[in-house]
Amino acid sequence: MERFRAVCMNDIKSLLKGDKRVIARIVSAVEDGKGEDLLESIFPHTGRSFHIGITGPPGAGKSTLVTSIAKRLLGCDKKVGIIAVDPSSPFSGGALLGDRIRMTDLALKDNIFIRSMASRGSMGGLAQATKDVALVLDAAGMDYVLIETIGVGQVELDIAQVCDTTIVVLVPESGDSIQAMKAGLLEIADIMVVNKGDREGSERLVSELKFAFEMREKEAGWDLPILKTTAIKDEGIEELVLALESHEKHLTKTGKLEQERKKKLLLRMHELIERRIRVHLQKKVIPENEIKQLMESMYKRQLNPYRVAKKIARRIIRGSR
Amino acid sequence: MERFRAVCMNDIKSLLKGDKRVIARIVSAVEDGKGEDLLESIFPHTGRSFHIGITGPPGAGKSTLVTSIAKRLLGCDKKVGIIAVDPSSPFSGGALLGDRIRMTDLALKDNIFIRSMASRGSMGGLAQATKDVALVLDAAGMDYVLIETIGVGQVELDIAQVCDTTIVVLVPESGDSIQAMKAGLLEIADIMVVNKGDREGSERLVSELKFAFEMREKEAGWDLPILKTTAIKDEGIEELVLALESHEKHLTKTGKLEQERKKKLLLRMHELIERRIRVHLQKKVIPENEIKQLMESMYKRQLNPYRVAKKIARRIIRGSR
Repeated sequence: MERFRAVCMNDIKSLLKGDKRVIARIVSAVEDGKGEDLLESIFPHTGRSFHIGITGPPGAGKSTLVTSIAKRLLGCDKKVGIIAVDPSSPFSGGALLGDRIRMTDLALKDNIFIRSMASRGSMGGLAQATKDVALVLDAAGMDYVLIETIGVGQVELDIAQVCDTTIVVLVPESGDSIQAMKAGLLEIADIMVVNKGDREGSERLVSELKFAFEMREKEAGWDLPILKTTAIKDEGIEELVLALESHEKHLTKTGKLEQERKKKLLLRMHELIERRIRVHLQKKVIPENEIKQLMESMYKRQLNPYRVAKKIARRIIRGSR
Repeated sequence: MERFRAVCMNDIKSLLKGDKRVIARIVSAVEDGKGEDLLESIFPHTGRSFHIGITGPPGAGKSTLVTSIAKRLLGCDKKVGIIAVDPSSPFSGGALLGDRIRMTDLALKDNIFIRSMASRGSMGGLAQATKDVALVLDAAGMDYVLIETIGVGQVELDIAQVCDTTIVVLVPESGDSIQAMKAGLLEIADIMVVNKGDREGSERLVSELKFAFEMREKEAGWDLPILKTTAIKDEGIEELVLALESHEKHLTKTGKLEQERKKKLLLRMHELIERRIRVHLQKKVIPENEIKQLMESMYKRQLNPYRVAKKIARRIIRGSR
């Protein structure tokens, strides 16, 4: 135990210095849910990174966009972390070989750390683990953490909660099938990007989005940009990076960055409490020998899960007062 | 209150008889999270429907497949409920006009009830609400409840927990971009369908899937079928419905249906307890005036959310003993 502790403390020192191998090891531990003590130790060293979420449907070119943004930031001597939560991302090995080679090329540079979370347990906890990993990259001194998520489920909405700025990426051809998805994505967008802007229909999509955003209640002081990029040709990236900087400035100037981050910390704390209670519930609240009887009675419709849940929850809540 | 109660009891009687207008009203109440008392009352009348999940990437033709299956089942004098959790589904108004017309046509038939959940609050609770709605349709006397989900996030994995049989639908052209998703989907599949089977590459996909499933640990007594359909032409649907029946028989014969349903009830109960505790946590555990101080301290890194969560969770857990 003593020795394990010592190693950890050394690890943390190396992590704070940005040692890539140590980052990788700690990220893995955290992904496996083994890093809570570590997370406690590194927490005081966090809060310095700016977190950017990039979300959109499969095939929107999110990874190419992330790569382009990352290269610009690296060019400005910034340290960049990338977390890909999208299983179809080239970062996760899920796309065409050419894309994957481009990513590998990027990963070998200094000042960058890339991690794909795609293969990690899909049944739950992915969003939780992503938040923890983002914290590790924050402690490791990354100026920017870019989080790529697939924009169709709930995970990306959940992850948007740890991002200071969320970029939503759409492409002309995704058309009707994502029409409906847009509704949910528009709500979390701070910057909209129409990628593959050289394709037919991109102007129409930009107009549609402008119309959609006119309907939305405006955030005071932030005129949501709708940008056209062709990431594969590196077109429009400069404007996008400028928009990112503008949003960062806007958040800082208005005090919104601090205010939002405080809210997010409270939310995170609630999640962590829930996680602990969940583990407790599944293991210990109902004695082993009663569980079988309980399942039997619910199956036979003699008891119902809603009422049982109410009773148990009340007992727990009363106890906590 | 008394009057509200009376109305509810009448509503339940009509629900059990399968009155479509009452189903619609109760489903809406449940979606809005207002139906817990109702759910308690109807629970004794549930457990008779067979729940089938249909999941796959956008554009795989899930809705057309669901429509075809539903029509077959209706033809055998079965009552069918359909829940679309996929925002890109024509059931949700998210697809081409032709598709939508086909769906509307189906919705007008007797013995069928269709509900789209797509527009409901995306930030969470979608999977939970879907489970409650499935229970309502169960009580309303549906022989089969078909649940269509988009196969890319966590929602469908969560919903798979209430399905007796899960059909995973893929199409040849989805290709590389869903390669990675397959891993997660394969785990929950009881039946695999390659839809749009008249297109190029469908045979290759079938072979790939056969290979993938050979690697997977086999479930005793169930030889997972990999079927080719062209739902738009109604091809292969008969085989699919036969496979569904086989799986239902397999589950019943081996006692797995009962066993799995018991497990799912326990899981559901845990979820319900968690939901109650979550609501409680967000509202009452920490006094209002302490919250601001807490956020401030966490933001300044004087306190950390992991440690605070541990403390509060311990207090709650200790109290519940």
